[in-house]
Amino acid sequence: MPHDRQAMTAASRLLERFRHARAATQALAARLGAEDMQAQSMPDASPVKWHLAHTAWFFETFLLSPRLPGYRVFDEAFGYLFNSYYEAVGARHPRAERGLITRPTAARVLEWRAHVDEAMERLIPRLDEAGAALVELGVAHEEQHQELILMDALHLFSRSPLKPAFFEGDPPRASSTAPMEFKGHPGGLAQVGHGGECFAFDNEGPRHTVYLQPFAIADRLVTNGEWIDFIEDGGYRAAALWLADGWAMAQVEGWQAPLYWRQEGGQWLALTLHGDRPVDPHALVSHVSYYEADAYAAWAGKRLATEAEWEQAPLMGRLWQWTRSAYLAHPGFRPGPGAVGEYNGKFMVSQMVLKGGSHASPAGHARATYRNFFYPQQRWMFSGVRLADDA
Amino acid sequence: MPHDRQAMTAASRLLERFRHARAATQALAARLGAEDMQAQSMPDASPVKWHLAHTAWFFETFLLSPRLPGYRVFDEAFGYLFNSYYEAVGARHPRAERGLITRPTAARVLEWRAHVDEAMERLIPRLDEAGAALVELGVAHEEQHQELILMDALHLFSRSPLKPAFFEGDPPRASSTAPMEFKGHPGGLAQVGHGGECFAFDNEGPRHTVYLQPFAIADRLVTNGEWIDFIEDGGYRAAALWLADGWAMAQVEGWQAPLYWRQEGGQWLALTLHGDRPVDPHALVSHVSYYEADAYAAWAGKRLATEAEWEQAPLMGRLWQWTRSAYLAHPGFRPGPGAVGEYNGKFMVSQMVLKGGSHASPAGHARATYRNFFYPQQRWMFSGVRLADDA
Amino acid sequence: MPHDRQAMTAASRLLERFRHARAATQALAARLGAEDMQAQSMPDASPVKWHLAHTAWFFETFLLSPRLPGYRVFDEAFGYLFNSYYEAVGARHPRAERGLITRPTAARVLEWRAHVDEAMERLIPRLDEAGAALVELGVAHEEQHQELILMDALHLFSRSPLKPAFFEGDPPRASSTAPMEFKGHPGGLAQVGHGGECFAFDNEGPRHTVYLQPFAIADRLVTNGEWIDFIEDGGYRAAALWLADGWAMAQVEGWQAPLYWRQEGGQWLALTLHGDRPVDPHALVSHVSYYEADAYAAWAGKRLATEAEWEQAPLMGRLWQWTRSAYLAHPGFRPGPGAVGEYNGKFMVSQMVLKGGSHASPAGHARATYRNFFYPQQRWMFSGVRLADDA
Amino acid sequence: MPHDRQAMTAASRLLERFRHARAATQALAARLGAEDMQAQSMPDASPVKWHLAHTAWFFETFLLSPRLPGYRVFDEAFGYLFNSYYEAVGARHPRAERGLITRPTAARVLEWRAHVDEAMERLIPRLDEAGAALVELGVAHEEQHQELILMDALHLFSRSPLKPAFFEGDPPRASSTAPMEFKGHPGGLAQVGHGGECFAFDNEGPRHTVYLQPFAIADRLVTNGEWIDFIEDGGYRAAALWLADGWAMAQVEGWQAPLYWRQEGGQWLALTLHGDRPVDPHALVSHVSYYEADAYAAWAGKRLATEAEWEQAPLMGRLWQWTRSAYLAHPGFRPGPGAVGEYNGKFMVSQMVLKGGSHASPAGHARATYRNFFYPQQRWMFSGVRLADDA
Repeated sequence: MPHDRQAMTAASRLLERFRHARAATQALAARLGAEDMQAQSMPDASPVKWHLAHTAWFFETFLLSPRLPGYRVFDEAFGYLFNSYYEAVGARHPRAERGLITRPTAARVLEWRAHVDEAMERLIPRLDEAGAALVELGVAHEEQHQELILMDALHLFSRSPLKPAFFEGDPPRASSTAPMEFKGHPGGLAQVGHGGECFAFDNEGPRHTVYLQPFAIADRLVTNGEWIDFIEDGGYRAAALWLADGWAMAQVEGWQAPLYWRQEGGQWLALTLHGDRPVDPHALVSHVSYYEADAYAAWAGKRLATEAEWEQAPLMGRLWQWTRSAYLAHPGFRPGPGAVGEYNGKFMVSQMVLKGGSHASPAGHARATYRNFFYPQQRWMFSGVRLADDA
Repeated sequence: MPHDRQAMTAASRLLERFRHARAATQALAARLGAEDMQAQSMPDASPVKWHLAHTAWFFETFLLSPRLPGYRVFDEAFGYLFNSYYEAVGARHPRAERGLITRPTAARVLEWRAHVDEAMERLIPRLDEAGAALVELGVAHEEQHQELILMDALHLFSRSPLKPAFFEGDPPRASSTAPMEFKGHPGGLAQVGHGGECFAFDNEGPRHTVYLQPFAIADRLVTNGEWIDFIEDGGYRAAALWLADGWAMAQVEGWQAPLYWRQEGGQWLALTLHGDRPVDPHALVSHVSYYEADAYAAWAGKRLATEAEWEQAPLMGRLWQWTRSAYLAHPGFRPGPGAVGEYNGKFMVSQMVLKGGSHASPAGHARATYRNFFYPQQRWMFSGVRLADDA
Repeated sequence: MPHDRQAMTAASRLLERFRHARAATQALAARLGAEDMQAQSMPDASPVKWHLAHTAWFFETFLLSPRLPGYRVFDEAFGYLFNSYYEAVGARHPRAERGLITRPTAARVLEWRAHVDEAMERLIPRLDEAGAALVELGVAHEEQHQELILMDALHLFSRSPLKPAFFEGDPPRASSTAPMEFKGHPGGLAQVGHGGECFAFDNEGPRHTVYLQPFAIADRLVTNGEWIDFIEDGGYRAAALWLADGWAMAQVEGWQAPLYWRQEGGQWLALTLHGDRPVDPHALVSHVSYYEADAYAAWAGKRLATEAEWEQAPLMGRLWQWTRSAYLAHPGFRPGPGAVGEYNGKFMVSQMVLKGGSHASPAGHARATYRNFFYPQQRWMFSGVRLADDA
Repeated sequence: MPHDRQAMTAASRLLERFRHARAATQALAARLGAEDMQAQSMPDASPVKWHLAHTAWFFETFLLSPRLPGYRVFDEAFGYLFNSYYEAVGARHPRAERGLITRPTAARVLEWRAHVDEAMERLIPRLDEAGAALVELGVAHEEQHQELILMDALHLFSRSPLKPAFFEGDPPRASSTAPMEFKGHPGGLAQVGHGGECFAFDNEGPRHTVYLQPFAIADRLVTNGEWIDFIEDGGYRAAALWLADGWAMAQVEGWQAPLYWRQEGGQWLALTLHGDRPVDPHALVSHVSYYEADAYAAWAGKRLATEAEWEQAPLMGRLWQWTRSAYLAHPGFRPGPGAVGEYNGKFMVSQMVLKGGSHASPAGHARATYRNFFYPQQRWMFSGVRLADDA
C-alpha cells in the first residue's frame, strides 16, 4: 500500500474513533435532563454539562486553535469556565463552583460540541503525526470523562431520596461464586509499564525492569457476600485491621459498609446505575476506598498486590483494582513540555494506583499498563478488591 | 349588601390576590432557564426551582390536604424535598443540598403548581375565615419568595464570569442627590406593631406602647456617592468604626466595598438585576451588612434608628433599612400552635430588624409594621442605610 | 471635713480597693501550678497566666505610662502579648494562641504585677478625678477577670480525665426547694440603667424611661431538679421548644444536659469548682446557654424576662440570669473616645444580656444595672434561668 | 568468654544505653521551664512534658508491667493520658488536647521517670532476648522523642514574638559552598532494607533485591544560598514546577520560603534552635516540605532520589533527605502481633520516606536503612533536599 493511502487509512481510522467517542459521550448525556446535567454533588465530582463542555474545550484548545487555520473559537468566555487544571493555559473557574455555571446551557454546550466536531472533521485528515497523537490523547481523554459522567451521576443520584436510575432494566446477576484461587508467580526480573507503539498515556511509561519476590495473586475479585462476612465479623469496628489514617476517616465519616450501601429490615440495599437494588452476594464488591480494601486484606490474612505484580497477572475486568503501590513516576518518566504535560505528572503524590478498568470504562479503553489513581479515602469510583500474598 | 354577597366578594377578592401572586412568581421564573433554576449558590440561598416548589408545597400542605375533601397529593415524595423548616411537618431535605434536587424537573414543578392552583380555585370559595386567613398567609409567603428569587438569582449570577442580567434594559438613574435632612421627633409615648384588621404576620404584633427619647431621623437613605466617600476616607480600614464581630468578619472576608461591587480602572462597577453597571453615585447604596451600616453611621457621627423610632417615621421605599433593633418578640407575642406557628417566632435570636420593603418586594407587600430580619453579616438582600440621631 | 482631707480619704479608700482586688486575683492564682496557668482550653477562654498579665497591662497602659512621670515599662514586649482587644493601642497576639505564650513565665508575670503595684501605690494618691475614675475602671476590670479565671479554670479542668478541683471541701448543699412564685408588676413607666454617682460601666447608662406592659417574674431561679424534669420529659429532643439556631446547635454539639453534666449508672454528675459531684436537685441549674434557657421557658409555658423588667425586680444572686434582651446600646449611649471607649460598646451585636452576678463574682461587683453579655450558644459562664410571664 | 559473662556484658551494655538515652532526654528538658513544657503549638506537635511522660509510659507498659514481678504502676490514670496511638492498649486522650493535660505537672512526670528508671535498673539484668529486644526498641523510641522534643520546641518558639532560643551560643557557620557533584551508579540488581543482627525497626526489613536503572546522585544537599536563587527566580510563583496538591497548599498557606524564614529589610532571617539568625547561604536549607523539595528539583532540572537509590549512596548527615518514595511496606514486611506491631506498619499510606538522620537526631540513631516518614506538606522536621537524576 503506498504511503499516501496508508496515511489516508490511518486518518480515516482516527476520524472513526473520534466520531465514536464523541457520540458515546452524548449518548450518555441523552439519558439526563438539563437539571441532572447542572448539579455538582461534591467538589470531587463535576456536573455532566461540565464534562460535555470540558471535552469540547480540550479539542478546541489543544488542536483547533493552534492547528486549524481560520478556526473561530466558539465563545471566548468558555476557556475560563471549562479549563480543568491546566495552569499553563490560564486562570480557571473554581472547581467547587462548577455547579454554579448555569450559562451556557446544556443546549448551548451541545452546539459548541457540534461546532468543534465539524471543525475536527476538517482538521483530522490534515494532521501530521504529532497532531494525530494529540487526537488520540483527546479521544482517550473523552473516554475517561465518559466514566466520570457515570461516577458523578451516580453520586448525584445518591443524594436524592428519589434514588433515580441511570440505566433502565436490570443489571446482570450472578447465581454463584467460584472459590477464590491464588496463582503463584516465581518472582525475579520482570517488565513493567508501557513500551509499545500503540497509544498510551505518558505516565504508563517508560517500560522498565523490576525485580520481584515470589508472590501469589487471586484469580477473581472479592464479592459482596465476602464483604458482608467482613462486616458481620466486625471489620468496620476493629481498629487493628486498619491503617491509622483509614481508621480515623472511618470514624469521622461513620463508615459501616461500602459507599451507597444501606441496611433496611436486615437486608443490604445499594444504589447502582440501575437504581436501588438488593445487594447481590455473588457480584463483586464495589465503591470501597483504599483504606477499606487494605483493612479487608488484613482481615483475610492477605494483602493487596503491588502494581508491578499486578502487571504480571492482569485481570481486566469489571472493577478498578486497588494496588498497594503509590502513584509515582516510573523510572525515567518525564512529563512533556507545555500544558499537555500537566495531564498526569502533577498528580504524582498521595494517591494510590488502581488497575484493570471497570464496567463503566468504554470498551478498549484500559490496558494492563494503564494507571488509574485516586486518594485512599475516595469511594465514588467503580473500585474493587483483588487479594495477593507473599509466596 | 347582604352577608352572602359580602362573603362572595371577599372570596373573589382573595382568589384574585391568589391568582395574581401565583402568576407573578411564574413570571419571574419565566426569565430563567432550567439550569438557572437548578443551581444553589450558597447555603443561605435556594434554587429558584425550589422556591417554585416550596410555595406550592405550602398551599398543598396547609390548605389543600387538610381542607379540600378528596384532594390528591400530587407526589408524596415532594413533602420531604420542599419543606423548608417546619419541624412539626416532618423530616426534610438538608438545606445546603437543595441544589442537588435535580428531579423533579422545573417542568414537573410547574405541573405541580398548576395542579395546586386548580384545586385552590375550588377551595377558596368554600373556606371559612380561618381558612381564608391561611390563604392570606400563603399569598404573603408566596410574595416573600418572589423577593427571595430575585436575591438568590442575583447572587447566583454574581458567581458567573458572564455576569448575566435578570432584567433587560436599564435601571432608572438619578441625576442628583438631595441634601440629607434630619426630621426631629419629640419622643414620649408611642405605639409600635400591628394592631389592625388587615393581614399582618404574627410577629408584627401585638401593637403596644413604648416610651421614646427625642430623636431625629433622615429623610432619605445613604447614596452610593456617600458610600464612596466612606470608602475613600478609609472606612473599611478603620477598626475604631466597627463592631468587633464586624471588624473580624470584614478582615476574614476581605470586605472593601458593598457586595457585588468591584473596582476596574479606578471606576466602581456593580452587578445588578440589570447586569453589570457603573455604580450610580446618586442611587441608594445597597447590599451592605448590618456591620457595614453600623460602621458607616459611626463614621458619619450618627447612628441607625431603632425599630420603634422607625415606625414613627416610616419611609417605605426602594431598600430594606437596617435598624439597630434585634429581632425579638414584641411584648405579648406568642407563636401560634402547630406548624404555622414556626413561621416567624423560632428565628428570634441573633438577627437584626430591617424595615420598609425594597424595589424587589412585590407592590403592597410591606407595611410600616413589617419586620424583616437577617443576620448582621448577611449582604445578599436589598438592604440600605438610613441614619438617625439623638435629638 | 476640709477638702484636702476629703481627697486624701477618697484616695486612701481607692488604694484600699485597688490592693484588695489585686490580692484577690493572686489568691485565686495561688491555687494553681505553673502548668495549670499556662493552658488555654478553647478560644473563648484564656490561660490564667494571661489574666494575671492582662490586668497588669491594663494599669500599666492606661494609668502608669501616661500619668506617672518617670514610670519605666516593665518589658516593652508585653504590650503586644497581653493586649486583649484594644485596636487603638496597637497590634496584639492572636487570641486563639494565648496558650502558646510560655514566656514570660508565671513567676515573671508576678514580678510584673509587683512592679505595677508598687508604682500604683505612688500614683493613686496623686490622681485627679479622671485618673481616679480610671483606677475604678481598672479595679472593676480586675474583678471581671477574677470571675473569668474561675470560668476558664473550670473549663480547663473539664477537659482532664483527672477532674481536678479548684477549691477544697464541699459546696453548700440545699435540703429542699421552695415553690416558685411569680410576683406581679403593673407595668407603666419605669426607669432603666445607671444614673447615679457611684461607679458603673459606660454601657449601664444613661438611665432612661421605658414603658412596660404588666408582667410577673419568678422569685427564684430554676433548680437542677426542675431541669432534670425537663430532660426526662424529652426537652432536649423536642424541636418545637427550641429556637431554630438553638436546635441546630444542640444537634451539632449533641447537647443532652447542661455543660459539665454527665450520666453514670443512672445518676447525674457534674464537674464543679469543688470537683466532680452528684448533681444536687435543690441547687440552681447552671452552665446553660441562652438557647437552653429559652427552650426551658417554652417547656414551662413561661418566658425569660426582658432586661427592663428584670431591673424592676432585681434578684442579685448566685447565678447570672439570662434575659430575653439583646445586648444593645441604651438610648443615648455613646462610647468614650480612645482605647477605653472600646471596653463595652464594640460588642453590641449578637449577644444577650445576663443580670445579677454569680457566686463567682467578687462581692460587691455586680449591680442591678450591670450588664453582662454572652453569645446565645455559650455555656461556660455561671449562668442560670429565671422565669417570667405576661401578666 | 563463658556464656554467663557474655550475657552479663550484654545486659550491662544495654543498661548503659538505657541510662544514656534517658539522661539525654532529661538534659534537653532541663533547658525548658514548666510552661515551655506544657504548651502544644499544633496538633502535629506534642508538649515536651508529654514526650517525657510518653517515653516513661512505653517502658512501664511494654516492659515493667508485664515482666517485672511486683512492679507497682506509678499512677493508673497515666495510661489513658500518655498512650500515643496504640489501639490495642486501650482508649487514649485526644491528640489535639495534649496541651490541656496540666496535671500531672512536669515535676510529677520526672518523679514517674525516676520510678520507672529505678525499676528498669532491676529488670534489665534479668531479661531474656525478647525482653532485651524490647528495651532496644524502647531506647530507639526514646531517641526518636528526643528529636521530636527539638522539633516541637522550635515550632512552639516560632509562635512567640520573643523568639526564644533552645541552645545558647552560635550555630556552626560555613564559609563556602563546595560545587555540587553528581556521582553515577550503573544500576542493576541491588539490596535494600535491613537484614543484619543489630537493632533496626521492623519497617526497615526484610532486606530484599531490587533492580535499579542507572542513576546519579548529588554528593551534598542543597544550601540556603541555592534556595534563595530558587525564590528569587520565582520558584514559589511558578505553578508549572509544582505538584498540583503542593501548589494548592502553597497558595492556601501563602508559602514564600521555608518554614521559619522571614524577610526583613531585604535580608532573610530564620528562627533556629539557636534563636533568630540571619540565613547562612552556605548552610543547608532546612524545614522544607516534600512539595517544595520536589518543586526545587524540577526547577533545577533534576529529581529527588528513590529510597532504593539512596541506600546505594547513603549520605548520613545533618538533615533528613526527602526521597520520592512513598512510605510503604518492603516486600515481605508483616507487622508483629499486639500493640508493638502498631509501631510503624499502620502509617503506611500517604507519607513519603526521608533518609539519613539530622543534627537533631541522637548520635548513632539513624542507619542507611532507617525509614523516617512524613506527610508531603509537613515542614517542622529537620528536612533537607538532595538531588538525583537519571543517568
